[in-house]
Amino acid sequence: MSADKSLSDLLNSYNQGYSLEQGFYKNPDIYDEEIKKIFLHHWMLAGHTSQIPNAGDFFLFEFDIESIIITRNKQGEVKAHLNVCRHRGSHVCLEKEGNTTAFTCPYHAWSYDLDGKLIAARIMEADFEKQENGLHPAQVGLVGGLIFISLSDNPPSLNAMHEDLADVYDQFGFDNMKLVKQTTYPVEANWKLAVENYQECYHCAPSHIDYAKIHALALAPKKFAPLKEAFLKETTCNVRTKSSSYYFDLAKDGDEGYQYDRNPLFKGMKSGSLGGKPVAPLLGKINEYGEAASEFSLGPVTFFLIYDDHMVGYRFLPTAHNTCVADVFWFVRADAVEGEDYNLEELTWLWHVTILDDEKIIIDNRKGVDSHFYSPGKLSGMEDMEQHFLDWYINAMT
Amino acid sequence: MSADKSLSDLLNSYNQGYSLEQGFYKNPDIYDEEIKKIFLHHWMLAGHTSQIPNAGDFFLFEFDIESIIITRNKQGEVKAHLNVCRHRGSHVCLEKEGNTTAFTCPYHAWSYDLDGKLIAARIMEADFEKQENGLHPAQVGLVGGLIFISLSDNPPSLNAMHEDLADVYDQFGFDNMKLVKQTTYPVEANWKLAVENYQECYHCAPSHIDYAKIHALALAPKKFAPLKEAFLKETTCNVRTKSSSYYFDLAKDGDEGYQYDRNPLFKGMKSGSLGGKPVAPLLGKINEYGEAASEFSLGPVTFFLIYDDHMVGYRFLPTAHNTCVADVFWFVRADAVEGEDYNLEELTWLWHVTILDDEKIIIDNRKGVDSHFYSPGKLSGMEDMEQHFLDWYINAMT
Amino acid sequence: MSADKSLSDLLNSYNQGYSLEQGFYKNPDIYDEEIKKIFLHHWMLAGHTSQIPNAGDFFLFEFDIESIIITRNKQGEVKAHLNVCRHRGSHVCLEKEGNTTAFTCPYHAWSYDLDGKLIAARIMEADFEKQENGLHPAQVGLVGGLIFISLSDNPPSLNAMHEDLADVYDQFGFDNMKLVKQTTYPVEANWKLAVENYQECYHCAPSHIDYAKIHALALAPKKFAPLKEAFLKETTCNVRTKSSSYYFDLAKDGDEGYQYDRNPLFKGMKSGSLGGKPVAPLLGKINEYGEAASEFSLGPVTFFLIYDDHMVGYRFLPTAHNTCVADVFWFVRADAVEGEDYNLEELTWLWHVTILDDEKIIIDNRKGVDSHFYSPGKLSGMEDMEQHFLDWYINAMT
Repeated sequence: MSADKSLSDLLNSYNQGYSLEQGFYKNPDIYDEEIKKIFLHHWMLAGHTSQIPNAGDFFLFEFDIESIIITRNKQGEVKAHLNVCRHRGSHVCLEKEGNTTAFTCPYHAWSYDLDGKLIAARIMEADFEKQENGLHPAQVGLVGGLIFISLSDNPPSLNAMHEDLADVYDQFGFDNMKLVKQTTYPVEANWKLAVENYQECYHCAPSHIDYAKIHALALAPKKFAPLKEAFLKETTCNVRTKSSSYYFDLAKDGDEGYQYDRNPLFKGMKSGSLGGKPVAPLLGKINEYGEAASEFSLGPVTFFLIYDDHMVGYRFLPTAHNTCVADVFWFVRADAVEGEDYNLEELTWLWHVTILDDEKIIIDNRKGVDSHFYSPGKLSGMEDMEQHFLDWYINAMT
Repeated sequence: MSADKSLSDLLNSYNQGYSLEQGFYKNPDIYDEEIKKIFLHHWMLAGHTSQIPNAGDFFLFEFDIESIIITRNKQGEVKAHLNVCRHRGSHVCLEKEGNTTAFTCPYHAWSYDLDGKLIAARIMEADFEKQENGLHPAQVGLVGGLIFISLSDNPPSLNAMHEDLADVYDQFGFDNMKLVKQTTYPVEANWKLAVENYQECYHCAPSHIDYAKIHALALAPKKFAPLKEAFLKETTCNVRTKSSSYYFDLAKDGDEGYQYDRNPLFKGMKSGSLGGKPVAPLLGKINEYGEAASEFSLGPVTFFLIYDDHMVGYRFLPTAHNTCVADVFWFVRADAVEGEDYNLEELTWLWHVTILDDEKIIIDNRKGVDSHFYSPGKLSGMEDMEQHFLDWYINAMT
Repeated sequence: MSADKSLSDLLNSYNQGYSLEQGFYKNPDIYDEEIKKIFLHHWMLAGHTSQIPNAGDFFLFEFDIESIIITRNKQGEVKAHLNVCRHRGSHVCLEKEGNTTAFTCPYHAWSYDLDGKLIAARIMEADFEKQENGLHPAQVGLVGGLIFISLSDNPPSLNAMHEDLADVYDQFGFDNMKLVKQTTYPVEANWKLAVENYQECYHCAPSHIDYAKIHALALAPKKFAPLKEAFLKETTCNVRTKSSSYYFDLAKDGDEGYQYDRNPLFKGMKSGSLGGKPVAPLLGKINEYGEAASEFSLGPVTFFLIYDDHMVGYRFLPTAHNTCVADVFWFVRADAVEGEDYNLEELTWLWHVTILDDEKIIIDNRKGVDSHFYSPGKLSGMEDMEQHFLDWYINAMT
């Protein structure tokens, strides 16, 4: 019964190798600390440049109580600003997406340009300083066309990652994709239960029949290890296999955590789809199906699974201390044509059915974690990445 | 990020000339203090005597978690009592309105007369003192037929106002009106955001197209000032133009705050209606349309706009720390006949469409105020009345 | 205005003979204490053995945030375990009822047998001790076929009751009943307001027209006393009339509180039904209608009304600090056949309409108790059993 414990007591009683104590999932005060220490600091996927091809295009990125306007300015740069008027705080932009030349607050008509600069504030006194009242900016970090944002004035660095993964960006054509579908799945559980679920494939065999037919990662480690060894020796596909494990607590000081890895699919499986069949044109510079999939993650809540012919993004965002959403993004190469080169239903099938399973699993997990009789349980070897997440989390909250 | 701050910290960091810090809108503990210091003390509009013409007529006035029975006793006096049985606390009156000779609790049948006196308590011991167990009374203050109540044992005085505004009561026939419609508009925001919205017309031009065609007050001060000056010189209508500015922090010690003012409408506008057309018989002793409207407010949450032919009342009541309601009341002279002298749809049109706009504006304001990145912003000169509200509020909460 | 008071202040200011202060009903922290001190300690009705006739049959008993699996093991014993996986806490059993040979967690497939023993935990390290990771057991106490559970490691004793009431169990055939209907009535009020309502018949005459036609207990004490006296002298029915008043604060040290009592119905009333007509075969060894009904209660939230031909069970369970449910159970003798020996609608009519009345009463009570102007009121002599509940409650929370 740890729901009453203070954050410091909970942190002190953390037992590595075990799941977290209940209080971390139930206590609204701890959630407030998470927002400050994690979500107002680290990088999160906001969307993709293909959503805002032209100057003045914009969309809103929202989580918890925050709303951020992502836009392309006149110089073609991607910009992000808090959707909070500097007068009395109203949301300035009420549309989820669109195109505009300026953001004019619907309340008192203060008007901001695409760079967040206050350009009009009617009837204000002569000594009012417009230049000090621009929209609060957020940091923008681009990974190819992927738009990441950080709400920190001093965000973790992405430089080491950019250098390390330059070949990956190039091979998969990160600069040459488009977002073709995004779906939001609400999950009635604390966001960490959703992130933990994503971190481990211990549950894949019992829970995800379809995934487990395609991904060798669903196998027990003893069976997976020789498959991976063979894959690393034999693969001829022109995609990097060398892994970069700088995720969570493995991140270097001052850097944002990230990961790259490549793992075999089962024999004959070319993509994450029904029967492992191809579902879209090969990405980037890939010249043949490698019967493998790459993983790429950046920051604490954004994860990608890159098949040879499409990329799936997963993003977990809190909406309150006991609810979150899982957003799933599907990407194909920029010049692929729907109906000709890919079929949206085929493309999105696997991860749609998989997350529907996970939604249910995570909620049932939450119900038990809520009990006075829940206590942290021993993790298996297949939950080592979740272990890294927990270690990182404890450190981030300290 | 002021949501965590204590009340005293928030009060200390109040910056006159700027909007309030976030904590005042989000912190449930501060809301509890507001209930005690403001809503259990000050005068609020409960309704109108035309709702209870006969002895035994009653209606309920409800806000937050309180329910108050407003009734007319056998002597014809208006009485107000808490709807809380003195036995085990049940609501005694379950109907919103009606006529009765006594209020008998549905639980154990304790029965109270129209003056709140306990007249029957079956089976209680012989030594039970009925005279000590009457319904808790609320104070009643009449302004013509307007019924105001205060839940305080020692409410602010209304005497100075009665003396000051006797001519206004008479000219507009406050004693000779009837309530013809009341509508409740729920607003998902802290009550202060709704009251602030009502206090300033800085938002009228951008937000209220219809209002801004009729009311000169929607103009910028520079344009409004000469219009008002001309109006004060030229008006021939037999309605007081001298203003009384004792609202909010301008109230005299021990008195409830109130205001009276009269302002020009645009040329040719006779009433608050489509095209400014007359919509009902002239009120009280008014003998011609003055192309103007009077404002009258009493206490922190009740405001009236008095056109020459009808009166609109606005009352803001909290329902929880992050929700409130705006109740709008429409009054005409007592002898006006619906369908002949006025048409309800024409009468209520302007303020119905105006509050629908405001509902949206206030919620969008709340969304931004919720953000970690909201900070108090500089007020304009057109928000001076809001400024008085804020100054008063800070003082009331101290 | 006691909602802000601490538990210890509220306990100190308890005034015997009066209803409780508001804080006991409104304060979520006090609710948390109630869960620990009352609901995780005392005995509650979980269900009936007729729901799980065969080995592997199970059903879930749920309240607040807890879920308990009630099952019959291979040896035919009734067992109860927390529905919380010892790995990462997921609910293990997702079906409300069914039959199984083992409970396999849907998340990672840890599997538990009917005795809660962990029998499979795939891929766990060699040193993982399965025998230390069984499901958390709950105590099971049988009263004939009635299944009571306690979540305490050291629950109050039932032994004295078993010895005392052996004749009652036998006469009513507690071993030979079946559950034929269970209905859950949600009540938007703190659970104590529902239990208090059940404890007193002061409200029966004003609130329950149908009950008051059948049960003499609805009479004022002065009128009831001579009826009871006559009944005790005259009754010839072979059912115990001697009462056992060990309820609430009258329980002996270390024992769970319980009560048995028998009271007359009105002349000609044979059962709790429309017109007092028989509705099912006589229970147990009863050989004629005694025009009376017995009361049996065990623990703080479970109450039975035993008519000569059927038994009604009442159980109050909290779902949150301001909501609860009333579960009503109807039992007949085990060999009765629906449609031949009893008609479900006739059987359940009286207590269905009675609890619909109570639902409304309790909610109206809560609305008034919520008010800042509620204060504890004087109890009547007809509320003496409620008085015992309150005394016990104050002691249990101290």
